[in-house]
Order: sequence, then C-alpha cells, then structure tokens
Amino acid sequence: MGMAKRNPILAGFGRNVRSRREAKDLTQEKLAEMADLDRTFISDVERGGRNLSLLNIQRIAKALGTSISELTYGLGG
Amino acid sequence: MGMAKRNPILAGFGRNVRSRREAKDLTQEKLAEMADLDRTFISDVERGGRNLSLLNIQRIAKALGTSISELTYGLGG
Repeated sequence: MGMAKRNPILAGFGRNVRSRREAKDLTQEKLAEMADLDRTFISDVERGGRNLSLLNIQRIAKALGTSISELTYGLGG
Repeated sequence: MGMAKRNPILAGFGRNVRSRREAKDLTQEKLAEMADLDRTFISDVERGGRNLSLLNIQRIAKALGTSISELTYGLGG
C-alpha cells in the first residue's frame, strides 16, 4: 500500500473513479465521507498514486453506486 | 493487507480465482509462478483471507488470461 510509482493500471483506475465521481457531481470530500475514507486517499487514488486494496475499491464503488467490476472495466485488459 | 477477517467480497473473489484456475487446469503452484506471487498467497486469496491490492489482482487476472473486471464480476454489486 502507500504511494506507488506511476502505473497504467492505477492511473486508469484513478481516471475511472474521477469520471464517475464527477458524473455524480460529488466533490472528493463528499465521496470520501460516503466511502468512510480520507479525502487525501481519494485524491491519491484519482491521481493513480495508490495501489489500494480490494475492500477499499469496494467502498469507493459502493459510494459511487456502481460495482467493482464496472469501476475496473477496461483496466489491463 | 495481510490476513483479513472473513468477508463476503474477499470470499467471493477467492471463489472466482479458484473457479478460473481450475477451469484452466492450473495448480496453485503453477498460478503462483505465472503471477510471480507466493503459493501461500494464492492459497490465502482463494480462501477469502487476503484483502489484496489492485496490482496483485491484476497479476492474478493476467496469469489467468482474464481481466480485473471479469475476475471481480458479481462482487458486492
């Protein structure tokens, strides 16, 4: 865990999260609150700087009203 | 990371991995070798005992010839 080197999988996941969050008109702060995560964690994830765990992916997916599978669609195909 | 309490998301992911591994007629040892992970790690994942990271999910998906999205299908939907 922690900050990871720039990686295309993490970067793509971050873009997916940001895209869905913006589509729902949520701030990073609001998403963080809904997912019970830190705002800086969400920010790091969106920048592709976090190799986050499956359960944290699930928290974010749930808060965004989507599934893990949908939120990871197109990554590392 | 590390061993996690029994969790339906982790348990479901573990079942997905085992199911695909067996469909490909791979042993845990062989999958571990292909994914460059420890055999005990694969064993823990399949038992739902690992809250693994996105990049390790990716390694396993790649070794199984599938995608992250497909390997997480149906989890926590």
